[in-house]
Amino acid sequence: MKAGIVGANGYSGMELIRLLINHPSVDIGLLVSHSTSGSEIQSLYPHLSGVLDRKLADFDPDELAEHTDVVFFATPAGISKDLLPECLKRGLICIDLSGDFRLKKPEEYESWYHQSPADASLLQDAVYGLPEVNRRQIEKARFIANPGCYPTAAILGLAPAIKDSAIDTGSIIIDGKSGVSGSGRKAVPGNLYSEVNESVKAYKLGAHQHTPEIEQAIEAMSGQHQPITFTTHLIPMTRGLMCTIYATLAKGYSTKELIERYERFYEKAPFVRIRPLGTWPATKEVVGSNYCDIGLNVDGRARRLTIVSVIDNVVKGAAGQAIQNLNIIRGWDEKSGLGLTPVYP
Amino acid sequence: MKAGIVGANGYSGMELIRLLINHPSVDIGLLVSHSTSGSEIQSLYPHLSGVLDRKLADFDPDELAEHTDVVFFATPAGISKDLLPECLKRGLICIDLSGDFRLKKPEEYESWYHQSPADASLLQDAVYGLPEVNRRQIEKARFIANPGCYPTAAILGLAPAIKDSAIDTGSIIIDGKSGVSGSGRKAVPGNLYSEVNESVKAYKLGAHQHTPEIEQAIEAMSGQHQPITFTTHLIPMTRGLMCTIYATLAKGYSTKELIERYERFYEKAPFVRIRPLGTWPATKEVVGSNYCDIGLNVDGRARRLTIVSVIDNVVKGAAGQAIQNLNIIRGWDEKSGLGLTPVYP
Amino acid sequence: MKAGIVGANGYSGMELIRLLINHPSVDIGLLVSHSTSGSEIQSLYPHLSGVLDRKLADFDPDELAEHTDVVFFATPAGISKDLLPECLKRGLICIDLSGDFRLKKPEEYESWYHQSPADASLLQDAVYGLPEVNRRQIEKARFIANPGCYPTAAILGLAPAIKDSAIDTGSIIIDGKSGVSGSGRKAVPGNLYSEVNESVKAYKLGAHQHTPEIEQAIEAMSGQHQPITFTTHLIPMTRGLMCTIYATLAKGYSTKELIERYERFYEKAPFVRIRPLGTWPATKEVVGSNYCDIGLNVDGRARRLTIVSVIDNVVKGAAGQAIQNLNIIRGWDEKSGLGLTPVYP
Amino acid sequence: MKAGIVGANGYSGMELIRLLINHPSVDIGLLVSHSTSGSEIQSLYPHLSGVLDRKLADFDPDELAEHTDVVFFATPAGISKDLLPECLKRGLICIDLSGDFRLKKPEEYESWYHQSPADASLLQDAVYGLPEVNRRQIEKARFIANPGCYPTAAILGLAPAIKDSAIDTGSIIIDGKSGVSGSGRKAVPGNLYSEVNESVKAYKLGAHQHTPEIEQAIEAMSGQHQPITFTTHLIPMTRGLMCTIYATLAKGYSTKELIERYERFYEKAPFVRIRPLGTWPATKEVVGSNYCDIGLNVDGRARRLTIVSVIDNVVKGAAGQAIQNLNIIRGWDEKSGLGLTPVYP
Repeated sequence: MKAGIVGANGYSGMELIRLLINHPSVDIGLLVSHSTSGSEIQSLYPHLSGVLDRKLADFDPDELAEHTDVVFFATPAGISKDLLPECLKRGLICIDLSGDFRLKKPEEYESWYHQSPADASLLQDAVYGLPEVNRRQIEKARFIANPGCYPTAAILGLAPAIKDSAIDTGSIIIDGKSGVSGSGRKAVPGNLYSEVNESVKAYKLGAHQHTPEIEQAIEAMSGQHQPITFTTHLIPMTRGLMCTIYATLAKGYSTKELIERYERFYEKAPFVRIRPLGTWPATKEVVGSNYCDIGLNVDGRARRLTIVSVIDNVVKGAAGQAIQNLNIIRGWDEKSGLGLTPVYP
Repeated sequence: MKAGIVGANGYSGMELIRLLINHPSVDIGLLVSHSTSGSEIQSLYPHLSGVLDRKLADFDPDELAEHTDVVFFATPAGISKDLLPECLKRGLICIDLSGDFRLKKPEEYESWYHQSPADASLLQDAVYGLPEVNRRQIEKARFIANPGCYPTAAILGLAPAIKDSAIDTGSIIIDGKSGVSGSGRKAVPGNLYSEVNESVKAYKLGAHQHTPEIEQAIEAMSGQHQPITFTTHLIPMTRGLMCTIYATLAKGYSTKELIERYERFYEKAPFVRIRPLGTWPATKEVVGSNYCDIGLNVDGRARRLTIVSVIDNVVKGAAGQAIQNLNIIRGWDEKSGLGLTPVYP
Repeated sequence: MKAGIVGANGYSGMELIRLLINHPSVDIGLLVSHSTSGSEIQSLYPHLSGVLDRKLADFDPDELAEHTDVVFFATPAGISKDLLPECLKRGLICIDLSGDFRLKKPEEYESWYHQSPADASLLQDAVYGLPEVNRRQIEKARFIANPGCYPTAAILGLAPAIKDSAIDTGSIIIDGKSGVSGSGRKAVPGNLYSEVNESVKAYKLGAHQHTPEIEQAIEAMSGQHQPITFTTHLIPMTRGLMCTIYATLAKGYSTKELIERYERFYEKAPFVRIRPLGTWPATKEVVGSNYCDIGLNVDGRARRLTIVSVIDNVVKGAAGQAIQNLNIIRGWDEKSGLGLTPVYP
Repeated sequence: MKAGIVGANGYSGMELIRLLINHPSVDIGLLVSHSTSGSEIQSLYPHLSGVLDRKLADFDPDELAEHTDVVFFATPAGISKDLLPECLKRGLICIDLSGDFRLKKPEEYESWYHQSPADASLLQDAVYGLPEVNRRQIEKARFIANPGCYPTAAILGLAPAIKDSAIDTGSIIIDGKSGVSGSGRKAVPGNLYSEVNESVKAYKLGAHQHTPEIEQAIEAMSGQHQPITFTTHLIPMTRGLMCTIYATLAKGYSTKELIERYERFYEKAPFVRIRPLGTWPATKEVVGSNYCDIGLNVDGRARRLTIVSVIDNVVKGAAGQAIQNLNIIRGWDEKSGLGLTPVYP
């Protein structure tokens, strides 16, 4: 099978390359980059020299149809909504890593992304690609909206508790912390080393575009639409993302009972690992891999549950999950090409 | 006036030295360090060579009484409760930077610090040294329990809202993020560069010893004892601490109204700065200084308030606040020796 | 005395602000910034709120003449050569932190900076402001070319050995390592957090514009023009700069003998500290201060001397040294406003 | 084939685990750790949970002989010299990652490692495992002394120039920069985050134990014993190592000519990549992989060559190279289990 990557020279595109190179059933067919088309990828990214020797092309759906079977869109918000339909028309499997097709309601996209939304019927066609929650639908899909990085960690952290009605969905607060790669390779002052290093900052309070995506997933699981409070922080590291999630308990579970329920819930999910009682994950323990690690704590005094959920934002939060979705669509082993041990230290 | 520092070669002790050297009314009289007594401080810490040339002494209250007027205890938990009373007896002003005298109830110290508490009557004598909340009592004090780093950021972030009954005190959740200097100069694997770097980890969930200190302060302001949920995270930076605080609004304030109330509350507090609407502080903006910067956001959809409060944990969270307390006790300008502009970048 | 800062919103300009605020004899008269004129500096840089409340102005030499006595140019290369002469004409003391007036030979500026040089007679008028080497000339100067960051560390590391003819000047190799603030606040991909972090890279081999500046200083001290080999590296930290310098010994000194000679050479230099035998400085030991710390090692087997010289590139390598020069020009205590203890840790 | 790892819970041991898990022809037979024997590796290192479920054993050569065919020693200096002979006796292939068997002259080990050396005849038996220089001998070996991290980068950087007599071997100066993982998981103050972060320091000047190892390799290639000057620096990153190497040119090559010669020299070496003219590698471009990337620059003015050589110290500088040696010994594809694309960013 041949894969195309649109937006190949961003961080997610680059990670798709790193992972697909070792995938047993996929070859890289075409690399597309608007801004650097015509260049050799290994000149722009010397870490790829000797690994992949390929010229970057401009976007051309016919070329993609000729040389690929699946196309990954690793583009900034607002691009794939126009390009991806052209590939769908030509019968290609499409996996969109941007936010363009994640929200079912066009008006939500408009109000949180401040752009005009994709075609409403296409929004309905897109399958939200969070395999641990949505596997059945993905199996039959040919068009995936790959989840955002924060929603991946948040929803995996919440799903067992919500499905068990263990928490009050109106009480959910998510405190997110992300490494800088999450904001891509944009050369803006806020991403400069000297500004980010030795600092933590809160950003986009009450306005982060991943908010409605998480709320939509919570509603899908609980049947209730509830606003969450979601605060994101930039911390001085390249990769890694943590969601610390707070919610009021609706049932009188102990930490131990909840751990057992989480373990059962994720029994067949090869990429979710639940930490034992009294321990919580660090992002370093998943970096470079497709794992999502989750730790739990019940605060009996306040009847509140704290959930700590970590991923590598570039892998499980983007490229790795996209490949996991492809594996499921094709009926391959879900772990194909994703047998990545975290790089430690 | 002459100052003594007990625990001079820890990070807080070292910062006391840095700040006192530039204080117009205080000289350093004696440096005490149990583990390195007999050494010259500038051999252990070459950054002090040419700045301060002094031998470290063993703890001896008579020596302290002879050479100093005020003693700062920058010792780990469990030390000052035994040593400080000896200095009090000899008429010295005592400022304790450890947690030994912060909690009024001995049983709380016992259950959160896992050690036997200080003498109960001494606990009553100690004045909790958070000047922005407690200035009057500090003015008359001779024995200060200097607040912990997390409580300083948390309480300053909460005080105006609590005193205004603007929030439901039973709903408070504090998500803390701290640089590694907060855990001192202990050579344990968890503080090693290769373990901390490129990682964020949650620690001591439901068990951090600063929890009862924050609850005690909330009770003092609101009259109600309520459990908070407090989660601490270690992030890869040396200095800096942020508390992101969540609470349900009890009054229908807008962000703008709350900002005005916070500004009024801190009108006469030279070290607290409130950020304008739509902006929130980064720790880098206070590092090296005694400032506490606060940003606010009302999430109208969820009727919840988010407060972002940042300090330099070694300055406002320890040595700087200790000197601020001394300034107030002595009736000096509160900013004496603390006219520190944040070091940026 | 009133100071103007042209280029106030770069890192060096900002550091001039931080230092001048605490200078006993200087007030800030005017802040000039082409790109952000009209803005309040404290809105752009919230770390200054409550510290300095000032509007940024466009460059206007008459305004500067009216409101200031000394002007610091903290501008990128190629700006001050045109602006500074206007201030000189109006009788202002001028201190240029850029490279525009450091090289006496216009053709060297042209070939290393790839720009047309300043007026040749002005180049002769400018006094190279490295006080530890050049104090006498600075005392009488009104126009200072403030040294580059690498040249400051390199020349201070080399001066005693060269003046003593202890090393072969034809054998000098300088391996420089700098934090990212050295390349300023430019939003280019190479300065992004995710690119710089967890990496060290060599750059501008054989082409760094500080090369002729160091060679010119070596020639001034030794009477001989010799090419040096100078390699610069970007390392993942914000502030700090190290030069590791290698040279063949011309005299049979031991490390101990050289340390004594270095100590004697810098006896009256309050900002240079020589490390004792068997120890070498780390940049952390000078960060935030105007110190240059130097350590030495004679490799008897290879008859080679290794010199390790560290500074804070923004202080001794830029703003601090500029103020030191002003202090000397005005006959003030050389340490006025520069009594900065390194910020540790 | 079954592998044993002695010292499994250090950073090199852990990396052997990460790499062997994906090796097509090797299974992990036994993990040995003196300090943590009896524990489950995945409890100590949660990043391995679900990846490897194994109990750590005490060292027992009979157990190793029963369960493994090859033993990797990832132990600190001074351990394998006593343990490894027991495994050799039992017919096991032995690959030592420590420094115990690298130096052919026992007296050099004694004077640089400050310990008593291994048995002299064993030192002669050990094959120095730098495949790009030594492949033939490795093919026939059963006992490998795996090179040190600095020597790997230094010798690969120097080999083509030395074998071509392009440089004067008496003029070699190596300026090394290493991430903190290079000093292992030792809980000493010098490795603490708050001490290492935002700092660069020079250490062990004239005394680094890798010095004689590099000199021995230079002598083996050139026939001449010459002292090098070797200075090592600790920089604030976890993984990655750079050697910047300086030498006087003996032949009048241009940079371009040297690049061609280097490319030819490493034509059949799959893990060495030479950078094109005017570019030099960053450590980030090799991290996570077994590559050694090399960039060159001839300084025509000073007739000096500068070589920039980078590796991931834990992979090509330790575990990766050890597996590369095993691949060659067994006649497998040299890249088996090492098809690692650098993790970027």
